[in-house]
Order: sequence, then C-alpha cells, then structure tokens
Amino acid sequence: MGAEGLDALFYPRSIALVGIPRGLKAGKVFLLGLLDQGFKGHIYLVHPSASEIDGFKTYPRLMDIPGSVDMVIVMSPKGTVIDVLEECAVKKVKAVILYTSGFSELGDEKGREEEEHMREIARRGGFRIIGPNCMGIYSPASQLAPFPEMPRVPGSVGFLSQSGSLVHLFTNMCSSKRLYFRHIVSYGNSCDVDFPELLEWMKDDDNVRIICAYLEGVKDGKGLVKALKADAGGKPLIMWKVGETDAGSRAAASHTGSLAGKPHLWKMLFKQYGIIEVSDIEELLDTVMIFCHLPLKGQGRVVVVSGPGGPAVSAADAAEIYGLHMASLEEQTIKRLGAILPGTGTSLKNPIDVGMAASFDLSHYLDTMEALVQDGGVDAIAVLGGGATSELTEQYVEGLVRIKKASNKAIIAVAYPGFITQEELLTPLYESGIPVYPTPKRAFRAYAKMMGFYRFQKARGIVT
Amino acid sequence: MGAEGLDALFYPRSIALVGIPRGLKAGKVFLLGLLDQGFKGHIYLVHPSASEIDGFKTYPRLMDIPGSVDMVIVMSPKGTVIDVLEECAVKKVKAVILYTSGFSELGDEKGREEEEHMREIARRGGFRIIGPNCMGIYSPASQLAPFPEMPRVPGSVGFLSQSGSLVHLFTNMCSSKRLYFRHIVSYGNSCDVDFPELLEWMKDDDNVRIICAYLEGVKDGKGLVKALKADAGGKPLIMWKVGETDAGSRAAASHTGSLAGKPHLWKMLFKQYGIIEVSDIEELLDTVMIFCHLPLKGQGRVVVVSGPGGPAVSAADAAEIYGLHMASLEEQTIKRLGAILPGTGTSLKNPIDVGMAASFDLSHYLDTMEALVQDGGVDAIAVLGGGATSELTEQYVEGLVRIKKASNKAIIAVAYPGFITQEELLTPLYESGIPVYPTPKRAFRAYAKMMGFYRFQKARGIVT
Repeated sequence: MGAEGLDALFYPRSIALVGIPRGLKAGKVFLLGLLDQGFKGHIYLVHPSASEIDGFKTYPRLMDIPGSVDMVIVMSPKGTVIDVLEECAVKKVKAVILYTSGFSELGDEKGREEEEHMREIARRGGFRIIGPNCMGIYSPASQLAPFPEMPRVPGSVGFLSQSGSLVHLFTNMCSSKRLYFRHIVSYGNSCDVDFPELLEWMKDDDNVRIICAYLEGVKDGKGLVKALKADAGGKPLIMWKVGETDAGSRAAASHTGSLAGKPHLWKMLFKQYGIIEVSDIEELLDTVMIFCHLPLKGQGRVVVVSGPGGPAVSAADAAEIYGLHMASLEEQTIKRLGAILPGTGTSLKNPIDVGMAASFDLSHYLDTMEALVQDGGVDAIAVLGGGATSELTEQYVEGLVRIKKASNKAIIAVAYPGFITQEELLTPLYESGIPVYPTPKRAFRAYAKMMGFYRFQKARGIVT
Repeated sequence: MGAEGLDALFYPRSIALVGIPRGLKAGKVFLLGLLDQGFKGHIYLVHPSASEIDGFKTYPRLMDIPGSVDMVIVMSPKGTVIDVLEECAVKKVKAVILYTSGFSELGDEKGREEEEHMREIARRGGFRIIGPNCMGIYSPASQLAPFPEMPRVPGSVGFLSQSGSLVHLFTNMCSSKRLYFRHIVSYGNSCDVDFPELLEWMKDDDNVRIICAYLEGVKDGKGLVKALKADAGGKPLIMWKVGETDAGSRAAASHTGSLAGKPHLWKMLFKQYGIIEVSDIEELLDTVMIFCHLPLKGQGRVVVVSGPGGPAVSAADAAEIYGLHMASLEEQTIKRLGAILPGTGTSLKNPIDVGMAASFDLSHYLDTMEALVQDGGVDAIAVLGGGATSELTEQYVEGLVRIKKASNKAIIAVAYPGFITQEELLTPLYESGIPVYPTPKRAFRAYAKMMGFYRFQKARGIVT
C-alpha cells in the first residue's frame, strides 16, 4: 500500500471511542482532546454498560452505531481488543488508533503473536492500525488531538514519536516558543503502520516543511532505507534515536517492544542520508527552531555581539568547535563600530563586546546590529544582550525585530540565563523569525547542524 | 605573600569609591551594590568637582578623606589611575578594586607596561590590586556587592570569574535555585592578584565548600600548579576554561588581555588534579548544584522512575553514556513495585515506567520511591514526573521532600520541560537538598562528574 493509504489516519470524518472510561481516567484524554480542538465530525462513544457519558449517548458496541465510522480509538481492556478489531472490519472502519497496551512491550512471545493477529485482521478488514500502546494522532487542521489543551494552530513541523508522552511534552515546549505542528503521530509498538511508512507520507505532504522523529527502533530495515531514500523535496529530517546503549536498548524493548538496532548502523544511515541527529529533547527543540526560522543559505560566517564579555569569549569557542567561521568584518564596518561604541570596556573585533553600558544605552546594541547587517562577509549575527529594565528589554526586542525585518541576514538571539529573566518579553522575536537560545553554545550547535544539512543538500544538487 | 594576605579584600571596614559618576552611569553600580547589601562600614565618595552625590558628601581626592580607608574601588578615567594608586599608597589603603579598563586587553605594549607600573606601586605601597577591568568582590557576609539586587544570603560556593558580567548573571541563575555564594571575585586583567592566589585563599577559607571558576588565562604557570596542588580538604574545583580554540583565544586576549594557553596542557592539569571541567554556563550550574545538594558517597548506581516512557528510555541511555550504572533492583523491591503499579502501560524494570496515570494518582510515583529508597543496591533515584494539575504537582513535590527527609539516598528530580511548567513549584525541592534538572541527560552528566571526583578523591585517600 502506498503512502497515500495513510490519509485515512489524518482526515477522519467520524470517530468512535471504544472503551471510553466514565470517570477521569487516563483514556478520557482522547475525548477531551477532540472536544478541546472542536472536532467537526461525528464523535461516538462506545461503553459496554453506561447509556450516557459526559452528555454523550453511548453505544454498547461499535456495531450499534447507526452511521459510518472512519476512525476508531480503542482504549478497552486488553482482552477485548481482538473482538473490537473484528468489529472494525465489519463496520468498514478505515483507521484504528490502538491505545490499549500490554502486548509486545511485555517481552513475551504472546504479545508478538497478538500483534501479528491484529495486523492480519487489519489487512483482511482493509483498515490500518496505529499502535498498540500509543496516543495516536495530533493534527490540529483536522481538529485531532490525543490530549486537551494542545495548540489549535497548525504549523509546518511533522513529528513522528514512538513515545506518547513526548507528543504532549514537546508541543508544550514548542508552543511557548511559537513553534507549531502540522501532524504528530505517536505510534507505539507499531504492529501495522511503522515509522518508514509514516515518514514517506510526511515527506509527501506539502503541508509539512520539517520532519522530526523520536525513535526507539524500526522493524522493517528495508522499508526504513527506502523511506530515508525517498525524495523529501529538501525537507530536513531531524532524528532523536534512543537505545544506543545496552541499558537504553533494554528500556526501549520494555517501552514499545522495539529492537533498537546497532548504533553504528544508525550512524551510517544518518550520514548517508543527511539526517540531522540530536540526542535529547533540548537539542531537538533547538534544532527544530533553527530550521523553522532561518533559511538555508550562506556560508556559516557568524558574528557575535555581546554586552557581557565572558559569554562572548565562550561564544567564539563554540562557533569554532561546531565548525562555523567567525566572520572577518569589512574595514568599513569596523570604522562604523568605532564611532558607535565607547573606547574602553568594548572590543571591535568579532566577538564584538559592546560593553556593559549597552544594557542602559541600547543604541550600542542596535546601531552595532545595523552596521553588521550591511557587512557582506556576515551570514548570521548572534546577539547576546538585553536591557537593564523590562522596559529597556522590550525596546531591545523591538529593535531586533525592526532590524530583522529590514535585512536578509540570519539573526539569532541569545537570552543568556540570568540576563533576560522574563521569558514572555521574547515572544516578538519568535514571531518574527528570530530563534532564541539560552547560550551561544546551544545557538551555534543548532546553526551548525543546519549549515551541515545545507552543505549536504548542495553537494547533491538538491538546493542551490 | 601567603594567601592570608588577601583577607583585606574580603573584610574591609571602610571603602572609598574614587571616580563615582554623578548620574546613572555604569560605575554607579558599585555604590548601589554596597547600599543594597547594607554595607556596615564607612563609604566615602571621591569626585573631582561635585560636593555631594546621592546624599553623600564627596571628597575631591582620596587624601581628603578624614578617616582610614581599607579598600578603594577605582572607576575614574584611565589617565588618572596611576595617580590614584599613588594616593592609595600614601593613604595606607589595603586593597584596591580597579574597575577602569583600557589596558592590556587593548593588546598593545603600553597597556602591559601600565599594568606593570600599577603592580609596582601596589608592592611599594603594601596593598593589593584586583583588576583592572573587573567588577571586584561579591561577599554578602561582608555586605560587599558590585551590583544592586544581588542575594544577601551567604552560601558555601566560591566563584572566581575573569568575567565581571558572569558575577551578576550566574548569581541570578543560581539564586532562583536557592544556590548561594560565600565569595565571588571578578578579577579581570589580574595585574597583581591572579587566579592562583585567589584559589589558594578559597581553598583555605573554611566557609567555602565548593569552588568554581570561569577562566580565560593565567599568567603565572608555576603559581597555577602550586595552587592546584595545594590541599583543598576535599573541596571540589569546577572549572570553565574558555579560549580553547583560536577564535576563543583571540577573544580572551581582547577581553582581559589573557593568554589562553594550550588546551591539551589544561586538560592534563584537569586530569592530574581531579578538576571538574565544564564547558558552558548551563553545565557549570548543573555541576555546582549537584555538589551543593548531594553527599560524596555510593557507587553511582542509579534508578530511573518516570511517568513518560520516552524520556525514561533516553534516561537509561544517558546513564550508561556518562559511565553510571543502571541499578539492578532487589527481588523484594520488584515484588513491591508489582503491587504498586498497574499491570499494563508500566515497566517494573529499571528504568521504571510508572505509567501515564501516575500524574493523576501520585501514589504510583511516591509509593515507588518509598520502595526504592529501601533497596540496598540503589545509590540515587532520578524521578521524572509531576502532577496533572498544579495542586497535584505541589503534592508531588511535598511527597518527594518527605521521602528525601526520611532517607539517605540521593534523590534527583527531573522537571522535564513541558511537564512541570511552573518553576516556582520546585522551590521546596531545592530547599531540601533535591537537585532539579530539565532532562535526565543533564542530571546524569552532573551526577557522573560528581562520582568521578569522588573516585579521584577516594583513590588518593582524601575521602573514604
């Protein structure tokens, strides 16, 4: 089945929740999620004994639902799952999200056999299964969410996550930085639909511009290589692969029944297909952010502008360690900086130390930035600063936004911890395409990953 | 001169501020800092023309001050510095903080000669100089601070920083986590008092339990080795050495006129003297925090408790990558866990997946923790969780604090980003000796550094 076969997962017109709990138990989040997103299709609840839950009429069995059902979310007990799937086949359901757990992740043969059986029913019934042991799909354009209080704004990032909780945690982290998702799939033990097929589908979806993934293991090695090879139209794939140690592999097996695979084989794949590797959630966020905000261009020539001198020195180290180039400034730029900055306590060389007084006199920051965006030898400016008061910080942020709008250089803000302490003052930066990092090290690590991807794509003629 | 010679820097009974600005210029922070701390000694202001500044009588010259002056903070223009230092000699001042910049960091011979001249005056006059190009001393027990709004609480951490701005930024970061400092010295170009002497003094000071440092370079290599060798009574030295690349070295030279030195020589010193190396401000904070909260003991056998399954898998990876051991649980513990946790969606193996429902039913977290603190094979428990609401998170935090108080195991909390979003709910953890990290990776990186230091000390018979 081609990747288009997965469309049913992302655009259901009716959803039945089978095994919905009456009280506030974990499974309730599926109903709350759909209601919170304002799901426009039909919602049907299936419960063996209750006649009504949360104001919804309930049906004793899937078969009793009068209309057609595109998607079924199954949260009923483990022992009922096979019967429910057989009913799905009869009811001509197109997609099943299987939340119920207790199968291959338990590590015994029985769990694997049961999953094999599920897949067989799905093949026979002509539907697809996501899961078991998963949270399924978040796709705000279709008003789908497996948790309440998730953003209603569709973005351009696709996220494939073998962990259900990361769906919630990572969108929380991202939305505070104004990064939004088009689709997220938590696919758990992947008895039927697995990572490779989901990846191909996301590569094909024009609404997705950046793909990221949290991965414990993949069953179908050939399918994986095919999916990694598939044309992505220049979309980056950012991958957080866990299970790289013995302890991690064992944990992955207990979590989603995954075989983590040999780390060096994964590394080879990453290298061969230009996959951007990250190793924890902070790095995942940092990397997604840079791809969301900055265009693929330039030669990675950076200039650092900083009020505090110490962090400026460490920024220069970080740039070089990550393989970026500290830009050589044009003579004209240096002359302009000489006229802008005080003669002592500053440095006109890159990293440019604008001095401690810049927090009071923002022109030291902003005029320096104005001069630098006109320097032909600079691709990106990382500015580490802020105002001495929240009013001044607001003006500082406004100034950066203004400069960004009038220029085509990459601007990266470093909100050094302890400097800008009110996170909400940074929002206009995110809204205008300025990524923000806590330290220069994290900023340059992300920027260098992006430039590495750009070189990979250029070498293959995918981008110019 | 022995290290006791530096006492004058930390316990002045009277301070003169020479060149204090009338308006809100950068130098004003020194006066604001002393007033904010409630400095109990005499403060004298010296200004060439004003007769009064901010309600203080001013004196045209240092010589005109009637009483004795222990410490002088110099912020007058570059051209006046030599004359002021000569006056300090006459006035029998004991310590000088030289804020004025524009000397060796400019990179010319003249700056170096001027600094040589300053040192010569100090030797002759019997006083010591911190600086030039520095912020001097923060020591809340003596009510000394170079910035207003710094914590008034003395702690047990000593910090030697060649960067002035880090004094402010790092204390800001730390105080939100209830980590406080005994002394901080920003010593800039170090024309007289340099890192080695300050380090020896801090090693000798019983009030300092943990020493950390941000370093760009050291002039006196022999003195450095002597200071690193000097008995520290088991105190850890955590060092952030910048200037490890060409770009960083050049930046260090422009910032404090420092010669950064060869990175491999520094690495050798770190190894030989059991110095804990860190490479940015987040890692510095993470490492200081673990030493502040956890005792040096155990074998680094960790257990991970997590509600979200994905982060638990990555935690297992992180533990192994950093050389810790995922603890094997006693049979009795596993039996207890089996009775506590639901049969599906959980895992009783380390990492222990307590399941998503734990955020609603906190007993899954807390009873698990109660079982683990009684397991003889466990040294540290890293718990990644929180409540589904802020009330539940408060109860979760209270529960951890209660368990910590009744146990002698190390407990490390992971406040995964997107999980516990209200930072202030974590305060009771910091107050009761539970370090908190955003990710398991950062938690285990810090814990592994501490265990590495412990092994180093044990091998040398310094600790048992």
